[in-house]
Amino acid sequence: MKNVYVTRRARFNAAHKLWNDDWSHAKNLEVFGKCANPNWHGHNYELHVTIKGQPASETGYCMDLKDLRDLIKVHVEDPLDHRNLNMDVPWMKGVLTSTENLIIAIWEQLEAPIAETGCHLHHLRLYETENNYADYYGGE
Amino acid sequence: MKNVYVTRRARFNAAHKLWNDDWSHAKNLEVFGKCANPNWHGHNYELHVTIKGQPASETGYCMDLKDLRDLIKVHVEDPLDHRNLNMDVPWMKGVLTSTENLIIAIWEQLEAPIAETGCHLHHLRLYETENNYADYYGGE
Amino acid sequence: MKNVYVTRRARFNAAHKLWNDDWSHAKNLEVFGKCANPNWHGHNYELHVTIKGQPASETGYCMDLKDLRDLIKVHVEDPLDHRNLNMDVPWMKGVLTSTENLIIAIWEQLEAPIAETGCHLHHLRLYETENNYADYYGGE
Amino acid sequence: MKNVYVTRRARFNAAHKLWNDDWSHAKNLEVFGKCANPNWHGHNYELHVTIKGQPASETGYCMDLKDLRDLIKVHVEDPLDHRNLNMDVPWMKGVLTSTENLIIAIWEQLEAPIAETGCHLHHLRLYETENNYADYYGGE
Amino acid sequence: MKNVYVTRRARFNAAHKLWNDDWSHAKNLEVFGKCANPNWHGHNYELHVTIKGQPASETGYCMDLKDLRDLIKVHVEDPLDHRNLNMDVPWMKGVLTSTENLIIAIWEQLEAPIAETGCHLHHLRLYETENNYADYYGGE
Amino acid sequence: MKNVYVTRRARFNAAHKLWNDDWSHAKNLEVFGKCANPNWHGHNYELHVTIKGQPASETGYCMDLKDLRDLIKVHVEDPLDHRNLNMDVPWMKGVLTSTENLIIAIWEQLEAPIAETGCHLHHLRLYETENNYADYYGGE
Repeated sequence: MKNVYVTRRARFNAAHKLWNDDWSHAKNLEVFGKCANPNWHGHNYELHVTIKGQPASETGYCMDLKDLRDLIKVHVEDPLDHRNLNMDVPWMKGVLTSTENLIIAIWEQLEAPIAETGCHLHHLRLYETENNYADYYGGE
Repeated sequence: MKNVYVTRRARFNAAHKLWNDDWSHAKNLEVFGKCANPNWHGHNYELHVTIKGQPASETGYCMDLKDLRDLIKVHVEDPLDHRNLNMDVPWMKGVLTSTENLIIAIWEQLEAPIAETGCHLHHLRLYETENNYADYYGGE
Repeated sequence: MKNVYVTRRARFNAAHKLWNDDWSHAKNLEVFGKCANPNWHGHNYELHVTIKGQPASETGYCMDLKDLRDLIKVHVEDPLDHRNLNMDVPWMKGVLTSTENLIIAIWEQLEAPIAETGCHLHHLRLYETENNYADYYGGE
Repeated sequence: MKNVYVTRRARFNAAHKLWNDDWSHAKNLEVFGKCANPNWHGHNYELHVTIKGQPASETGYCMDLKDLRDLIKVHVEDPLDHRNLNMDVPWMKGVLTSTENLIIAIWEQLEAPIAETGCHLHHLRLYETENNYADYYGGE
Repeated sequence: MKNVYVTRRARFNAAHKLWNDDWSHAKNLEVFGKCANPNWHGHNYELHVTIKGQPASETGYCMDLKDLRDLIKVHVEDPLDHRNLNMDVPWMKGVLTSTENLIIAIWEQLEAPIAETGCHLHHLRLYETENNYADYYGGE
Repeated sequence: MKNVYVTRRARFNAAHKLWNDDWSHAKNLEVFGKCANPNWHGHNYELHVTIKGQPASETGYCMDLKDLRDLIKVHVEDPLDHRNLNMDVPWMKGVLTSTENLIIAIWEQLEAPIAETGCHLHHLRLYETENNYADYYGGE
């Protein structure tokens, strides 16, 4: 069994703010600092999507990365790119838009569509800035 | 005369949208596409600030980059980082927040404070994404 | 007059070899070394296309980078990406496929279509590897 | 037991195409798209080779990276750099030159020579482009 | 249980040399080559610090990265940045300053302070150059 | 006349400190801060060397980059890599090792040897860190 891990990189540019509706304005600023600017800020997010599988003898592919690219476009880039993560994304409603929560939500969007192709989502990495990023391997 | 060009890189994360108030909603979407999302989007902007000068014999410096870093913090990062470029920045009010207009406005913020130190602002580069960036050398 | 320089980055993956048909096999290997491998080698080329102009008051754009992206796709990526630079590109026939000659040829492909939009091609940068690249500003 | 993982990065520039000899020309183009261009295309491949071990008390090294660099040169760069992966590499003959198959084949070339030095090959990463890469940890 | 791995990148610029005091000058040069230059050399080190945890419902954070940034500043950057790793760092005294030994020593500095915040240090990556880096997950 | 600018990237890892021998210890610390650490610090320097010329019809080369690579090795990497810029480099003796002074000194080392090959040194860029770099075009 020769499992290979294959990764496709994607990008999306979005606005967001960190804000807990149960808290006062002052408490939000105290905890989240400038990330709680009420008028939003934004990022160039970079996402790495890794699937795990064995290369097919006929193609040498674990998964055709053109198919993975298309799935990421439909399930991640179209809903998130040039959007407001707090306002425009149905599956982020009521969720604090931290990198941690966002990577879990993206996993939940991608896991089933990738599984339907017979492949296995293994790992996500999500860069918020060049200095901050998160990794997720699914619930454990 | 041995002019050397010295550059300091800075970064700021901001929300914005491209929107011409003189146009209809439909026209804005037609011209600016997803960049006109009314709920904003955002970027990790990267700015390179280049000054031109001759190294002082006592220090070997054209300009102490700690001073340049501090000037960029006061005049660029503090007003722009974790802000909304359309709403939060007095000197961008009424200005379309394209990369082109933003780099000109940043020049106008930095030129005088750098000149006051006896140095000469020579060049700005502003990355909006890894694929799109602008350069500016002052009005010609 | 506030000229701003705006750049769009593009990429293409191509095969090529350096080979002078007027020379013997031995002379080609002597001059070009492993770059003359008769069975080809290849690169992930990275191209930066810079236009010069003044931001329009209605859009803040020197040139809509979506238009520039499309012109680069038609005139550079479609003919060069996943191609053999020596065999598949009509406008490289009979030309040694050095980075220098390739960047001049790309300029000649892009200059007129960009001029037709009313914009001005100012600069190209072409990376062959992370260690080797060329810049071109048109004939002087 | 304080295992440390030490990585050396290497690069090679090669031509290849994706092509299944059991298939028609049309079927190859249908499945592999532009990657099946009969006249080849190419890439700047980037390889990360990770060994696992414990630092020796006398040197602080798990493995002298100069030795690892030399092993990679002999077993990977010399056979692959400025080559055609389909035509020039004995150990890729009859193998579809996908990133998945290539990373497995490179593992098979490196595993024994690294083991002979008393070290343990732990992980390979192979970038085909900035957007596509594969990871391999040996057969499981 | 939805563990997420969150990483903060830091940098420090330091001088060092590889030198075993139990060996002759000649043996040091033979084993360590130019890394044993008695007058030192140096690097821009880049450190990635990864903690493991579950996002808090109130903040969406596994750990506030501002707190992690501050811990890294106190325990890594302040003692190492613009220092001589062999001479200036109490907790590197008598330790060969290889990347392997340095990453283990940094782990020992960071593990307890991070644990005191209720978080769990999971992984360190330390780049010495763009071609050489080490990973460490704690003693096994 | 079709001038093309061709660049080769090189790297060297060196120790240095900023120190003016005419000043007191206190004044050096006041002006240069942590850069004046008496026990040195260091950097991974990155140098871009650009020559200007016209592609030869026989080779397509302005200059064979293998030759440029070798000149950089002899005149820059050999004297600077894994060295102490203040102590080990004859042509930096008595010179404050700022990035500005270093880039001028490297120009003076490279200009004549490149001219002897019939080529023209046009531009140097020297990165001290990812945030600080200098450019030099020769005396003006």
